[in-house]
Amino acid sequence: MSTFGCSAEDVTTLQGFLGNTANAAGLSSFLCKKLDDVSSQLDATTLAVDNTYLLFSAYLVFAMQLGFAMLCAGSVRAKNTMNIMLTNVLDAACGGLSYYIFGFAFAFGIGSKTNGFIGHYNWALRGYPNESFDYSYFLFQWAFAIAAAGITSGSIAERTQFVAYLIYSSVLTGFVYPIVSHWLWSTDGWLSASKSVGPGSLLFGSGAIDFAGSGVVHMVGGIAGFWGAFIEGPRIGRFDKTGNPMVFRGHSATLVVLGTFLLWFGWYGFNPGSFVNILVPYSGNRGAWTGVGRTAVTTTLSGCTAAVTTLFAKRLLHNHWSVLDVCNGLLGGFAAITAGCAVVAPWASIICGFVSAWVLIGLNKLAARVHYDDPLEAAQLHAGCGAWGLIFVGLFAQQNYILQIYDGAGDRPHGLFMGGGGKLLAAQIIEILAIFGWVTVTMGPLFFLLKLFNLLRISPEDEMAGLDLTRHGGTAYIHHDGSDHPMHMHSMNGQKRPNEGPGGNYDGTNV
Amino acid sequence: MSTFGCSAEDVTTLQGFLGNTANAAGLSSFLCKKLDDVSSQLDATTLAVDNTYLLFSAYLVFAMQLGFAMLCAGSVRAKNTMNIMLTNVLDAACGGLSYYIFGFAFAFGIGSKTNGFIGHYNWALRGYPNESFDYSYFLFQWAFAIAAAGITSGSIAERTQFVAYLIYSSVLTGFVYPIVSHWLWSTDGWLSASKSVGPGSLLFGSGAIDFAGSGVVHMVGGIAGFWGAFIEGPRIGRFDKTGNPMVFRGHSATLVVLGTFLLWFGWYGFNPGSFVNILVPYSGNRGAWTGVGRTAVTTTLSGCTAAVTTLFAKRLLHNHWSVLDVCNGLLGGFAAITAGCAVVAPWASIICGFVSAWVLIGLNKLAARVHYDDPLEAAQLHAGCGAWGLIFVGLFAQQNYILQIYDGAGDRPHGLFMGGGGKLLAAQIIEILAIFGWVTVTMGPLFFLLKLFNLLRISPEDEMAGLDLTRHGGTAYIHHDGSDHPMHMHSMNGQKRPNEGPGGNYDGTNV
Amino acid sequence: MSTFGCSAEDVTTLQGFLGNTANAAGLSSFLCKKLDDVSSQLDATTLAVDNTYLLFSAYLVFAMQLGFAMLCAGSVRAKNTMNIMLTNVLDAACGGLSYYIFGFAFAFGIGSKTNGFIGHYNWALRGYPNESFDYSYFLFQWAFAIAAAGITSGSIAERTQFVAYLIYSSVLTGFVYPIVSHWLWSTDGWLSASKSVGPGSLLFGSGAIDFAGSGVVHMVGGIAGFWGAFIEGPRIGRFDKTGNPMVFRGHSATLVVLGTFLLWFGWYGFNPGSFVNILVPYSGNRGAWTGVGRTAVTTTLSGCTAAVTTLFAKRLLHNHWSVLDVCNGLLGGFAAITAGCAVVAPWASIICGFVSAWVLIGLNKLAARVHYDDPLEAAQLHAGCGAWGLIFVGLFAQQNYILQIYDGAGDRPHGLFMGGGGKLLAAQIIEILAIFGWVTVTMGPLFFLLKLFNLLRISPEDEMAGLDLTRHGGTAYIHHDGSDHPMHMHSMNGQKRPNEGPGGNYDGTNV
Repeated sequence: MSTFGCSAEDVTTLQGFLGNTANAAGLSSFLCKKLDDVSSQLDATTLAVDNTYLLFSAYLVFAMQLGFAMLCAGSVRAKNTMNIMLTNVLDAACGGLSYYIFGFAFAFGIGSKTNGFIGHYNWALRGYPNESFDYSYFLFQWAFAIAAAGITSGSIAERTQFVAYLIYSSVLTGFVYPIVSHWLWSTDGWLSASKSVGPGSLLFGSGAIDFAGSGVVHMVGGIAGFWGAFIEGPRIGRFDKTGNPMVFRGHSATLVVLGTFLLWFGWYGFNPGSFVNILVPYSGNRGAWTGVGRTAVTTTLSGCTAAVTTLFAKRLLHNHWSVLDVCNGLLGGFAAITAGCAVVAPWASIICGFVSAWVLIGLNKLAARVHYDDPLEAAQLHAGCGAWGLIFVGLFAQQNYILQIYDGAGDRPHGLFMGGGGKLLAAQIIEILAIFGWVTVTMGPLFFLLKLFNLLRISPEDEMAGLDLTRHGGTAYIHHDGSDHPMHMHSMNGQKRPNEGPGGNYDGTNV
Repeated sequence: MSTFGCSAEDVTTLQGFLGNTANAAGLSSFLCKKLDDVSSQLDATTLAVDNTYLLFSAYLVFAMQLGFAMLCAGSVRAKNTMNIMLTNVLDAACGGLSYYIFGFAFAFGIGSKTNGFIGHYNWALRGYPNESFDYSYFLFQWAFAIAAAGITSGSIAERTQFVAYLIYSSVLTGFVYPIVSHWLWSTDGWLSASKSVGPGSLLFGSGAIDFAGSGVVHMVGGIAGFWGAFIEGPRIGRFDKTGNPMVFRGHSATLVVLGTFLLWFGWYGFNPGSFVNILVPYSGNRGAWTGVGRTAVTTTLSGCTAAVTTLFAKRLLHNHWSVLDVCNGLLGGFAAITAGCAVVAPWASIICGFVSAWVLIGLNKLAARVHYDDPLEAAQLHAGCGAWGLIFVGLFAQQNYILQIYDGAGDRPHGLFMGGGGKLLAAQIIEILAIFGWVTVTMGPLFFLLKLFNLLRISPEDEMAGLDLTRHGGTAYIHHDGSDHPMHMHSMNGQKRPNEGPGGNYDGTNV
Repeated sequence: MSTFGCSAEDVTTLQGFLGNTANAAGLSSFLCKKLDDVSSQLDATTLAVDNTYLLFSAYLVFAMQLGFAMLCAGSVRAKNTMNIMLTNVLDAACGGLSYYIFGFAFAFGIGSKTNGFIGHYNWALRGYPNESFDYSYFLFQWAFAIAAAGITSGSIAERTQFVAYLIYSSVLTGFVYPIVSHWLWSTDGWLSASKSVGPGSLLFGSGAIDFAGSGVVHMVGGIAGFWGAFIEGPRIGRFDKTGNPMVFRGHSATLVVLGTFLLWFGWYGFNPGSFVNILVPYSGNRGAWTGVGRTAVTTTLSGCTAAVTTLFAKRLLHNHWSVLDVCNGLLGGFAAITAGCAVVAPWASIICGFVSAWVLIGLNKLAARVHYDDPLEAAQLHAGCGAWGLIFVGLFAQQNYILQIYDGAGDRPHGLFMGGGGKLLAAQIIEILAIFGWVTVTMGPLFFLLKLFNLLRISPEDEMAGLDLTRHGGTAYIHHDGSDHPMHMHSMNGQKRPNEGPGGNYDGTNV
């Protein structure tokens, strides 16, 4: 049972060696064999603990996809529910294939000719796992990759052709997103804060700190969504003839709350999970586990503060207590803290959340004024609060936390307000500009071309009737089932099923 | 790679020491260096494993908040759905801030002048983490704290002003609950079973055993809910003119089942997670991991037994198989086993669940008779079954399990039916009385004052119309969307949106 | 603090021993005491890590029960929602009791007279935990056991008496399923690939490889469902007078997507969790953690491929993009990869998913042709794709992975297409035949007897009215609540509540 201790035989052997001082070689090899065995087991234990932690974190991040699906479903009108949920399922499913075949290679594959712009190895997990990564890392990164496309589909919901979705989603998940993640998170990325491979040194001696992806995930998805929604234009009727915004409420607040809570739940994989390894001792009895726990706390506090701020702000502005606004405020607080969650103190995360609530409120006001229509406020929330989160890091990041997480010899640029100078802030701003530029020059022309070829927006008739009926074979909900008047299977094609009315059609005559 | 074993250089050094027996100091320091390194790594491993286990348990406990939200939403009428969900979101969000600033300090902060009644240190996590706790512990306790207020909002659902909610919820989460948790779970709490700090010894040489909080969480939330619901009185129409109870069904059984399952899922964080550390060896190849697993099993069996008992009891009493009653019975079984989950055998947990089903059935009958109206049966379930759970510990707790978990030198009071005398039972009864008294003298007057200042109950007109429409800007569900006849954004205030009818309004004329 | 290193006293002692070479016994005992302590702690660490991993995996598998409940609820008509959800709750609750009392004993209890057909020890967890298993293993296996019955209740939904459900569910979970799991997963099972107890050797020198239960769980549940649905016959109106199939859509696509994602989430406990232990080093810096991660990846890729294949196949066949079909395709891909997830390469899992999509499409066409009505396509999906998954193992299993997971001395039969001969494939086919035969001879007669005694199917009137109203005391949804016209509690019995109309009754006159 005692694998690493001494058996009775061991004791005899050991006493033999010790009784005869001449046998230094025997004794030494005996002791070293023991120590080597212990060492191997300790290494195996570390790997098992780190992989367990990372895998379960990845599962939580995956649960965010469910959260997105429910949030999106609840935020659109009943007639487009199946459409938006299908995009969420496919973000995960198509994303699984494309990230396996080339996405991961673009993001993290480091071959012989390493470069800071794009990875180029591990196609279809060839040569994987390697000395740096095990399968758990691939799974974790895949779960991240599929989140970005989900953000975008919120922005352009309720009016986009399904074919357009298939195209932009593939490009975003398979190419645009992986390259940004390479810049920030690969060891040879040009913006990386822990660059250890390839030529050149850290940008401004610092690199940009985007720990869990306020920029890499949220800004990328949000800016892509912005261009899509901008190029498509608002939904029919969203602004009246005089240009005043109309209320287009989603069909289920329950689904919105369900989705929000699931995203909150999953964010505990997203942010604390981004440490990748938890069994890394620092000093005293602290280690990466302390950082992981602190990250969970800062994440929680930022979201909570943003939610409470939004509650009272909306009460003052609109005179009611809105659960929908509180949910969006909460998510904005999470999107903002995602960049800095690991490198700021809990008290600072409260500032992060407070400001992010006002960023979202302000951008929503601006969007209404400029007639920008985003059914999930996704661009405002993810790109806007995400950008604030990157700046926040440049202001409040603490040196001790940075040194624990990133390489560094006692001194590194850190937050401006923490006495760390302006270099980190400069790098953060470069990240914002770089992401804005990159997503704009890739996704902007893509959406424009889709529009040019009439592949982007559905017809006004279809928009009024809803995507579910016209594209997806029926409606999401059937309250009064058709069992008394069953329909013919051969007419499963949506266009030919006139007697399967939209969700609100309850009069019983034509159902 | 082999960090803790011998390098080639090590072997040379070691042989040098051994070949020259005079060099005892060198050899000793060599060996001790090796052993010290191994020891540090083992300590780091223990911390990483314990923190991983506790963090993921905390995430599961947090998922219970989602469960509560869905359970509550499904159990109220459609017109109050957004109201109750908002309280659930805010329990978590406001609770996050208040527990960070002072709640945790009241509960677990042990400063220089320790006392058994209230903690008074670690305000806003100052001086944290410390030698006893890391961030994971704060997160775990926060997730517990927000559960109590959720119970209360169930009891007073569908008729309470939102301002009243904001007030009682803050007091409960920030003050009333933390103090009870200090009594039982802090190392200097006067009721604690593992008191190790401060003057005085264990109550009756035993202390009360409330492992995961049948009393601390469930009774506190349930009794607070009882006083709220009692002082407010029943919902309009809940009892007819002759005093007969009417059926007020919730609007969605699906949400009730969803919420119940999520609570079940989260309870695996709540009960097994309350070990806090899992890497604690006992003897043989058993350890805290055995206790954690057994706790998951006793929790499961108690809930399952309560569910099955309720199923057949309700079939006999009401002649139908009710999924809603089965769900509540199940949750009652969980609330009851929560106190004793770690210190009883699996067979005993079946007794726990069986009795708790009848406790809930009996209290529901009593509530109907005395015209007590609790939309979620929350007081009956959490306070009633919770109190039974505390008594159950006094009857069935096993000494061997108590000794493994709490400090003790070979002998401790345990369950009366297990031959452990009446001291533990006495301590359990003291806990029930103390919690009942404390919550009554704090929350009772609070609800009374709210009523006095007309802040507690909404007007009859608003109650008939529903809280969502009158307080929260609309209804939770929009089946027939208003896209054909969009509404003006400037009328977002609920009172001014006449054309956004309640959930049941499907005739299409004014939507 | 440094528990396993040297204290100051230790150093003195050690130097004393070393300075005096005669004291070999003292030195040896000193060193061995140190090494033994380290060894104990390493063993404890391994147990804590393995149990943490297995417990959290079990929690994920349990979450699948919620997924099933939501998937089933969404896939039936609104009038049968509470009925199907109650069966899902009871699968877990009754299953908890029966698996505790005798199910686990049949499956894994190995007493003095071991045999390959059925276990016969550990009744009600007597003599448990033992040297092989801790409580976490019981919990994990319970969560598996309750999954099988859930599959079956999908097949016979919307027309089955509740009493019939109670009977077949008990037999399936308590007897039929545990015995199949004994065959494959117990160390003395006759089909087991890691037989280490009892007489005889591996079947064909290989045994059947059903790593996480494509056969044990999915085929068992699916075949039981097939016989139930076959003996009951189709729902009224499912095929018209000329024999053409009618469309019977479920009432909520949102619940279907919610359930599907929850099943996906839980599958990460089901498949990767089936390693049971994660801290098992292989060689290099690989170990069971690599296998666990790879299993998560193969599971993901198979499901993703099946989903995408189904998307385009259905688009070609039916001209619409169907989220419901994509969800079922996805689940079929998961059911198929479940057998081989741990022993195939990621690229092979893509083949697995691709074929499984066509298996499901083909079986659904066949079912329509032969007038077989299965509301959840459960038999087609779980039995059909499950059987394909077993064959897939016989074709693509890799030797290196098999050797890592199962016992073996350098050479074992593996996949036919991988150069491993036909022995494994033969064993896989034997498993398919054995499961088909066993479930048929047990569940077939049971359903037939239930029919004979008029206990199986509800009356046509009740089928039209729905099970919820006639058996479960009301409808699942109340959109327009009855608070204005409350109902008398004494008429809680469903039959006597004429004014609580079915879900689609919104005209307001009789609600």
